[in-house]
Amino acid sequence: MKKIGIIGGMGPLATADLFTKIIKASDAKCDNEHIPIIIDNNTKIPDRTVAILGIGESPLEEIIISAKTLEKSGADFLIMPCNTAHYFYNDLTKAINIPILNMIEETAKFILKKNPDIKKIALFSTTGTLKGNVYQNIFNKYDIEIVFPEESENLELMNLIYNVIKNGELNYNPKKIINIIKNFKKKNIDNIILGCTELPIAINLFKIKGNFYDPNEILALSAIEKAKD
Amino acid sequence: MKKIGIIGGMGPLATADLFTKIIKASDAKCDNEHIPIIIDNNTKIPDRTVAILGIGESPLEEIIISAKTLEKSGADFLIMPCNTAHYFYNDLTKAINIPILNMIEETAKFILKKNPDIKKIALFSTTGTLKGNVYQNIFNKYDIEIVFPEESENLELMNLIYNVIKNGELNYNPKKIINIIKNFKKKNIDNIILGCTELPIAINLFKIKGNFYDPNEILALSAIEKAKD
Repeated sequence: MKKIGIIGGMGPLATADLFTKIIKASDAKCDNEHIPIIIDNNTKIPDRTVAILGIGESPLEEIIISAKTLEKSGADFLIMPCNTAHYFYNDLTKAINIPILNMIEETAKFILKKNPDIKKIALFSTTGTLKGNVYQNIFNKYDIEIVFPEESENLELMNLIYNVIKNGELNYNPKKIINIIKNFKKKNIDNIILGCTELPIAINLFKIKGNFYDPNEILALSAIEKAKD
Repeated sequence: MKKIGIIGGMGPLATADLFTKIIKASDAKCDNEHIPIIIDNNTKIPDRTVAILGIGESPLEEIIISAKTLEKSGADFLIMPCNTAHYFYNDLTKAINIPILNMIEETAKFILKKNPDIKKIALFSTTGTLKGNVYQNIFNKYDIEIVFPEESENLELMNLIYNVIKNGELNYNPKKIINIIKNFKKKNIDNIILGCTELPIAINLFKIKGNFYDPNEILALSAIEKAKD
């Protein structure tokens, strides 16, 4: 089996969530049948959204440091459980010698397989992922249109990601999020990508219902397949 | 902050559990305030109990390979979320140049702090941890007597650890485990150490009640303190 390297810390809980998802989705009957994994939970990586908006330092240097550490430690390929960080995907691939599974591309392929006729899908994400065209650039290749929430709705998603999940202010009323989902339904858009790794954690925590695709879960399944190659 | 290295894979779910416990117990308001952690989920490490019983190869070589990988990757100190593996603790410390926090010793100190008059405590563990005197050797230094379940009860714990949790056969009736706890109560022993990292996962899953000490949780708290040193 190949050894998976996880560029972690963006954020730490999303990293642990991906690690747990890989273990739980693995068909293993004892410790030795599980996939070898090395994780660098690098908490020095600067905020990705702030960098994309041009008001903070780039995270690329620290992401590359982690990628090289994992490569030197025997990882055969890498994964990165942070949607926004995929803005830097092309630059990252140039800096290292092992492949990196692209979470956004794996998500596009997975959604098309489940739903070959899909033309439009909603995206819940950080402002960085939205403004950086992280999803649009890849989904356009697959002829799927990405539809965004209203600006005020996206600010509420940022509040949920940064203040509630990353900061741990868990006393939160999810009504505003449920309304965003209802507004999409009115426009006949039922499918939603949870395009920030903190969002599946929030959706589970507050038991919010919807037709969600979780790129972290999809990445876990793709990584298991690639490790078996 | 110091970088924590986790020797993982014994088992993978216990490793993810410790990682999650460290993140949740950290007083951090954003990604950058979390502790840097590097994890080697080394699934090649041979079974510890089988080795201690003298019927399988030693895990020490693979444990040392992981420890050295973590040391080279910048870990300042190591932790090992596997009770049974602490049988090899002294040999491991000789092979590397950074400290390893001893999970068993941290557990003894934690229990004494909570309960200074304690003289006896029950231990749920693998046969390897029991026969290898992993807990007795350290708890005797602190004048705490370790009391074991009956042999047939310990076999049921092994069934829970290996078949139910590690193998994922989750359709399990926890009545036998509840009876072991009742038998200890009859002997006036209320406090129980969950001395295998798969056990807290099982106890949560089957909602079993008791006065439990979870060494993986205690190790998470000690590691957070040491990272701040």
